[in-house]
Amino acid sequence: MIEEVIINNLKSIIKSPAALNLNDDVFFDKKKLLVASIDTYNEDVHYINFKFPNRIIKKVIRSSISDIISKGVDPKFLLISFSGSNKNFNKKNIKLISNSIREEQKKYNFSLVGGDTTFSKKSSFTICVFGYSKKIIKRDNYLINDDIYITGYIGDSSVGLDILKNKIKLPFKHKAYFVDRYFEPKLAFGFHRELSKFANSSMDISDGLLIDLKKLIGRKKKGFIINLDTLPISPKLKLLLKKKKLNLNNYIFNGDDYQILFTSKIKNRDKIIQFSKKWNQKITMIGTIAGTRGNYLKFNDKLNKIVDYHGYIHDFR
Amino acid sequence: MIEEVIINNLKSIIKSPAALNLNDDVFFDKKKLLVASIDTYNEDVHYINFKFPNRIIKKVIRSSISDIISKGVDPKFLLISFSGSNKNFNKKNIKLISNSIREEQKKYNFSLVGGDTTFSKKSSFTICVFGYSKKIIKRDNYLINDDIYITGYIGDSSVGLDILKNKIKLPFKHKAYFVDRYFEPKLAFGFHRELSKFANSSMDISDGLLIDLKKLIGRKKKGFIINLDTLPISPKLKLLLKKKKLNLNNYIFNGDDYQILFTSKIKNRDKIIQFSKKWNQKITMIGTIAGTRGNYLKFNDKLNKIVDYHGYIHDFR
Repeated sequence: MIEEVIINNLKSIIKSPAALNLNDDVFFDKKKLLVASIDTYNEDVHYINFKFPNRIIKKVIRSSISDIISKGVDPKFLLISFSGSNKNFNKKNIKLISNSIREEQKKYNFSLVGGDTTFSKKSSFTICVFGYSKKIIKRDNYLINDDIYITGYIGDSSVGLDILKNKIKLPFKHKAYFVDRYFEPKLAFGFHRELSKFANSSMDISDGLLIDLKKLIGRKKKGFIINLDTLPISPKLKLLLKKKKLNLNNYIFNGDDYQILFTSKIKNRDKIIQFSKKWNQKITMIGTIAGTRGNYLKFNDKLNKIVDYHGYIHDFR
Repeated sequence: MIEEVIINNLKSIIKSPAALNLNDDVFFDKKKLLVASIDTYNEDVHYINFKFPNRIIKKVIRSSISDIISKGVDPKFLLISFSGSNKNFNKKNIKLISNSIREEQKKYNFSLVGGDTTFSKKSSFTICVFGYSKKIIKRDNYLINDDIYITGYIGDSSVGLDILKNKIKLPFKHKAYFVDRYFEPKLAFGFHRELSKFANSSMDISDGLLIDLKKLIGRKKKGFIINLDTLPISPKLKLLLKKKKLNLNNYIFNGDDYQILFTSKIKNRDKIIQFSKKWNQKITMIGTIAGTRGNYLKFNDKLNKIVDYHGYIHDFR
């Protein structure tokens, strides 16, 4: 809500022809081939507490580089601004954070090149990621009849968060899988380098599949149709839902997945399967772009118009 | 203190040969000729409150672009992350903020190209500035016998802050000058483009003249000698100190000046005077780089070794 108001106002002051647009999550300077994005994560809002700084830093780094990766671009440099109390950044925690950053640098091949450290009562991280690329995949460049795909699984991270909040109680040995996905989402890294070969439009799933799909659609007079049955749910999540009699609907649209959402022409289906195999990357076709003016979830052999993008549909069983 | 510990730890994980070093405030990618820096400003820490959002945004923008300007580089693109409550970012305030950004864009010729908006109880801004440059002036590239210079005046901003905090009471018509300098520091913009023609080392004065000089000296076994009598104090500040019987020492070393501190060879003195005239930019020679291992303030015809870099020297009258 605030975001929309600010973005709409800021849009009016953007004068750079180089800027893609403020809604596209990432900035692209076509002339200098620079791609950049900025994201802030606040304690109590984006993460529950500062209990596991070694894990939080991984989560915020992956969330940040996910923005650029989902556009087909390698993250190259990171600037990180750390805000917090002396207790947050005591020697032990700094050591933990540094070790995690070192691990992430190795895994995703970026370099931390600068930052800032400031005092605040509640901890907060702001990360600026930049990379260099000849092109990026836009968010709203899709066409009617494009297939809609997502990488990996969705919903696991949301369960992880509920476990951390003690809303779901599980034996210790079953917790780890979901909590790991919350703190360390499995980015479709590697596969992202192929995206430009077949994707018309792409973005990452951070706010939730339906909300992000709505953002992807943007202002064009198009719509999406998602087949609920095809959504990629992990075997562990399926088992958990069954055992605990939980409602899938409460987990799959909550976001924090950091998977790539992309659209591609029907003719590219085989190609995408090949790249999926090449990178051992799970890819699922979940729906299609339609000429309709509204967005639909297909289940029980029926098209259901989406009203609440958090996915809480009344007649959804 | 926290900053040093974090920086020392982060240093160890920096693997990019492209990074200048984390202490230099700005990142420079020599290969792609990109310059970048990040800074966070928190309510209660970097600014008192959210009372004048139209002014705060100018202050944080100027503080941020000052980092890059002081290195001789034009700020080209800004990413701004806004954190705060719905009250902070109500429509009225967003309008005020947008208008101020528009004014700053015009004055300093940069473009806002993206950002983020997040909820937090206390407001906060993080700004990432990018520019392109074939070279930048390093912080610690000075030589023995270099003259030390600063642009503009120092101390006015600190008085402005004390007025805002009601520590100094002044009639309304006398307040504006100082409060303006606090919110809208006069950057040495324009003149900064000449810096590379004569400056060996440079940085901006944000934490306070002496603290920043100490940072400039860094780990080299050199020292600085500053002539207290030569420090550029504005006529308005001189008058205020006299009338209110205030101690100059309490204001000139507090920072928030956002002037450029640079060093240059003695042979460049005439050249610097010429550029000062060309840009109508006040420039003052305030001291010299010495081979000594300690840093000194010269006053009462005596060299006084600096112990407290906040400038609170006991025998200073």
